[in-house]
Amino acid sequence: MYFNSIITVRKKWLFAAMIGVTALIPLSAKAAVDSETAFIFNSFSFLVHGFLVMLMAAGFSMLEAGLVRAKNASVQSTKNIGLYSISGIMYFLIGYNLMYTDVGGWIGSLGVWSPNDPAVSETGFINDQGDYSSSSDWFFQMVFVATAASIVSGAVAERVKITSFFVFVAIFTGIIYPIQGSWSWGGGFLSQFGFLDFAGSTIVHSVGGWAALTGAIIIGARKGKYTNDGKMKKMVGSNLPLATIGTFVLWFGWFGFNGGSQLALSSAADAVSIANIYVNTNIAAAAGAITAIILTLTIYKKIDLTMVLNGALGGLVAITAEPLAPSPLLALFIGVVGSAIVIFTIPLLDKFKIDDVVGAIPVHLFAGIWGTIAVIFSNDDASLIAQVYGIACIGAFVIISSSILWYAIKFIMGIRVSEQDEYDGLDITECGLEAYPEFSRTQQ
Amino acid sequence: MYFNSIITVRKKWLFAAMIGVTALIPLSAKAAVDSETAFIFNSFSFLVHGFLVMLMAAGFSMLEAGLVRAKNASVQSTKNIGLYSISGIMYFLIGYNLMYTDVGGWIGSLGVWSPNDPAVSETGFINDQGDYSSSSDWFFQMVFVATAASIVSGAVAERVKITSFFVFVAIFTGIIYPIQGSWSWGGGFLSQFGFLDFAGSTIVHSVGGWAALTGAIIIGARKGKYTNDGKMKKMVGSNLPLATIGTFVLWFGWFGFNGGSQLALSSAADAVSIANIYVNTNIAAAAGAITAIILTLTIYKKIDLTMVLNGALGGLVAITAEPLAPSPLLALFIGVVGSAIVIFTIPLLDKFKIDDVVGAIPVHLFAGIWGTIAVIFSNDDASLIAQVYGIACIGAFVIISSSILWYAIKFIMGIRVSEQDEYDGLDITECGLEAYPEFSRTQQ
Amino acid sequence: MYFNSIITVRKKWLFAAMIGVTALIPLSAKAAVDSETAFIFNSFSFLVHGFLVMLMAAGFSMLEAGLVRAKNASVQSTKNIGLYSISGIMYFLIGYNLMYTDVGGWIGSLGVWSPNDPAVSETGFINDQGDYSSSSDWFFQMVFVATAASIVSGAVAERVKITSFFVFVAIFTGIIYPIQGSWSWGGGFLSQFGFLDFAGSTIVHSVGGWAALTGAIIIGARKGKYTNDGKMKKMVGSNLPLATIGTFVLWFGWFGFNGGSQLALSSAADAVSIANIYVNTNIAAAAGAITAIILTLTIYKKIDLTMVLNGALGGLVAITAEPLAPSPLLALFIGVVGSAIVIFTIPLLDKFKIDDVVGAIPVHLFAGIWGTIAVIFSNDDASLIAQVYGIACIGAFVIISSSILWYAIKFIMGIRVSEQDEYDGLDITECGLEAYPEFSRTQQ
Repeated sequence: MYFNSIITVRKKWLFAAMIGVTALIPLSAKAAVDSETAFIFNSFSFLVHGFLVMLMAAGFSMLEAGLVRAKNASVQSTKNIGLYSISGIMYFLIGYNLMYTDVGGWIGSLGVWSPNDPAVSETGFINDQGDYSSSSDWFFQMVFVATAASIVSGAVAERVKITSFFVFVAIFTGIIYPIQGSWSWGGGFLSQFGFLDFAGSTIVHSVGGWAALTGAIIIGARKGKYTNDGKMKKMVGSNLPLATIGTFVLWFGWFGFNGGSQLALSSAADAVSIANIYVNTNIAAAAGAITAIILTLTIYKKIDLTMVLNGALGGLVAITAEPLAPSPLLALFIGVVGSAIVIFTIPLLDKFKIDDVVGAIPVHLFAGIWGTIAVIFSNDDASLIAQVYGIACIGAFVIISSSILWYAIKFIMGIRVSEQDEYDGLDITECGLEAYPEFSRTQQ
Repeated sequence: MYFNSIITVRKKWLFAAMIGVTALIPLSAKAAVDSETAFIFNSFSFLVHGFLVMLMAAGFSMLEAGLVRAKNASVQSTKNIGLYSISGIMYFLIGYNLMYTDVGGWIGSLGVWSPNDPAVSETGFINDQGDYSSSSDWFFQMVFVATAASIVSGAVAERVKITSFFVFVAIFTGIIYPIQGSWSWGGGFLSQFGFLDFAGSTIVHSVGGWAALTGAIIIGARKGKYTNDGKMKKMVGSNLPLATIGTFVLWFGWFGFNGGSQLALSSAADAVSIANIYVNTNIAAAAGAITAIILTLTIYKKIDLTMVLNGALGGLVAITAEPLAPSPLLALFIGVVGSAIVIFTIPLLDKFKIDDVVGAIPVHLFAGIWGTIAVIFSNDDASLIAQVYGIACIGAFVIISSSILWYAIKFIMGIRVSEQDEYDGLDITECGLEAYPEFSRTQQ
Repeated sequence: MYFNSIITVRKKWLFAAMIGVTALIPLSAKAAVDSETAFIFNSFSFLVHGFLVMLMAAGFSMLEAGLVRAKNASVQSTKNIGLYSISGIMYFLIGYNLMYTDVGGWIGSLGVWSPNDPAVSETGFINDQGDYSSSSDWFFQMVFVATAASIVSGAVAERVKITSFFVFVAIFTGIIYPIQGSWSWGGGFLSQFGFLDFAGSTIVHSVGGWAALTGAIIIGARKGKYTNDGKMKKMVGSNLPLATIGTFVLWFGWFGFNGGSQLALSSAADAVSIANIYVNTNIAAAAGAITAIILTLTIYKKIDLTMVLNGALGGLVAITAEPLAPSPLLALFIGVVGSAIVIFTIPLLDKFKIDDVVGAIPVHLFAGIWGTIAVIFSNDDASLIAQVYGIACIGAFVIISSSILWYAIKFIMGIRVSEQDEYDGLDITECGLEAYPEFSRTQQ
């Protein structure tokens, strides 16, 4: 019960406030860990798991730079370091408070975030906002926003104007993401409805996925990708070893993503939970990779590396909504299905001429939906209705708001580079420098 | 005494059971750390050091993708993400229990692993299986298996069939590795004999090395590598900056490999031990790199980067059997010799026409043997007889079992791609996509 | 007061000795954390933050290998793994004691470092040298030296003789860095004067920057870089995606660099401080990247990726001197200015025909000076006079000592490869192997 409660709301003190107690359920009462030691453990868990998630920005950068063509790899790198920076600043200036402060049900309050540790002094300490440093919490929440933005980056690659993309990211991470986040993790109406999403299969991954989907549709496919006779041109990634280590780094960071979402490390029960989360996370990812190996071998008679990478990521996204409650065997099953969904929907998007350069929509949106529904298999507090309701509310909001935003940007400043620039490669036209200037290229 | 005892057996509760006490030597009796805080520290150490070791899978992927030719770099990447996944699932399904449960002396029991923390509840906690979360222990043990499999991957690169390799990995990580692991870390006959291998110079690295050696011999050299007139064709790595950062990442992960093998962080003595391990690990690696710089400069008048990378790794493997007891100066010496062995045996293998693409056998097998013997220089509980006995038993078992396995695979499904496929590159034939499709290549 | 005091001197027990108390200010008196738990937290913080900083060596290797031309990328990789190794061994053999032992005011004592934890035993523990493991401290200090050396490596790339560079590194990290370090962090005259540099904007980054500056001048520009008619040849980096992830990895490591410099994690106040440091570090870096995006877009109409990378790094270097005291908004401002300095001084160096291949001097020296002065905006104990005095003393010492060293090396063994070797690329002549042997190259 206690475990699941903290899932509903991402911040323990909000939960405490909701159930009508003014102080936290005292950890020291039920265990031998003293309150200051608990404070240190909780804060350190946020920081360690937070720096793991931070490295996922590098993982996305590698994955995407490796999966685009060489003529766009500098721009893809620029987008990734830019979006991580913009996300962090926007979440500081507006996003955090919109998501976590005075959430009445639908939205938080406006204001710049600032650290708030009122009574941590040298002669003693009390902290009535929770048993961790406020900055450690902010840091951990902030790196999640960047992940959502990274997802968009890959889907709209190779034709989006970089400045337009950055404007999108600023509003997406400063406003759209935090508003929907306030509904669940901020203690708003979705959490009250019983929607459960432990580490963000929906709240982070599907949100990024929906924005990627609207972007891919509104911006349109790359020139020449789909011909009128229903054929499709393969536009293959330029650096697959780089994409592979990007996937490894994402996998590595995911231990922080899911493990840190326990939000505490101040009791033996917390330590057990985080360890179980690591195990389930790893097993789901491994099962996803193996599923992709078997499926591509069966279907195509070859092991498609990009599918294996996306299969592992599909497993990771799927386990994210509930990495704690499942048994390892159930985690394995969740990963298998997550990966299979990715393998089968990647070709499907092409059928609809939706040009998702790196496979971000199947991985983060479709596998994210699956993972959010799969919560009901292991978490007794979850209901199919609440899960579907959450997916639908968040989906509708992000589809509408991101579409408006993409169209507004299109109208105001344009959203897509010229056809000639796209042909020449965005590296030259947007950044003025090539990713690999010395390696002569087969024209793609 | 206490320190060395926990080296013999890799799990404290097994040790406790062996010496006839039913409870652990209570940490709280000898120190001020309360038992729940101790539980958290121990579990968190497994998780943090475990995620470092997990990243070694990425390090091996980079190192190996960088050291093969471009036409095989996708397959090498696929093998690495595949083997990490397969290792984890096999160790879950069968390996862990085979290694650590009910080991009578020669082998553990069959069964799927599952988390087991019986009495961690909210009203208190006791854990009669040890003072850490069972999942944190599993996670840490699991990442070690993957390392052993990674070693094989590099040696047999550029000609092994990828499906055959994956079958080998499944049985190697599910059965062969755990059985020999049960003899020492699982509390079997080798630990009773006094064989000491703190973090696995033999139990992980040489085991991988022996399997790499039998594989390289049974699969045979790459076509054209050795000509009948005794000459050798240089087949150089395609991406040395990638191989370099792979080595850095392995070095980074090794702090987890050796440091986490202290298996506890619940006392000041543990903290001191882990810190000493970090220092010795770093000094041995640095000494290995510098030795390679000096030796290649002396012998070849140039600093051979691939030798420097392998020299650093040789130092790391050598210190792994006993990273705690040596003084820093002794650690330096162990690293110097480990590296020198690598530098001198890499050309030696070519003399015997054993084609080890990345130098895995010198690094992991030869330096691993050296490191295992070097335990006697600093650990009073070690004896040359016990060390040699352990090396011999494990060596004989892995040579025989892996040879049988390689031959069985060869007989049943084939083990090697066709000559034409090898010439064209495995990326096209096994994966259907090139690693660097746009960079036109000088034929290698 | 307490917070700032530990900034002046980098080792708490030195501070305790200075203010005339024989024991540390007992942490356990002011808080609930018991002394052994405190010991573990402090040591673990050094180790975790230390391994983050260790990975910065890999980050520099990627950044520099990506920013040099392909024909020099193997040598650049070799230099980076070599310098990390040499730094560690030299700091062990001589540097640490020179910096931290018996510092009378100007210099420490000669001697090999060795672990020293006198009374950590199983029946209890006391540690009169501080409340952490001595090896954990050494490890953390050691990885900082390597950073200083890495800075030099980038500036003098593509023409320095590798053996000469390694000799420079050995003396720079064994003698020059520790001597100036003893003046402040070792408790010498600068700390007594009130010079404040929390994590090393001056003590690490500017020191590396000054040595890079003297090196770039004394070695001279790359052949053909500057022509007599005042024109400049662009010599662009060969692998920008690699340079980008190098920057991400440096950013990742910087949480260890600045966060670990709190030197303790044994109280709630420490946890709050480290978390605030993470936040400020991230905000300054993000602000630096965004500033570079805006400035290059304004000036050049394109977003120059290499400038964005250096802008982020400029923000990181600038916040390093005081990452704790500023509000997030001030941290943002410090990052903006740090980045702007980098953007405007990179072209300036070219005006003076100082050929800094990767932009190391603007990033580490100029932004480092800015950051050191900016301490006075938030830290009440700082004075402009003390800051300028520290910058000047350290600058003068490093300029003179490194110049003498570069000239001595030039005289004794030569410092620069031949013109033909430079044209052919150092990879062939110094290492005997190419970084990317299969990718045919456009001549640069």
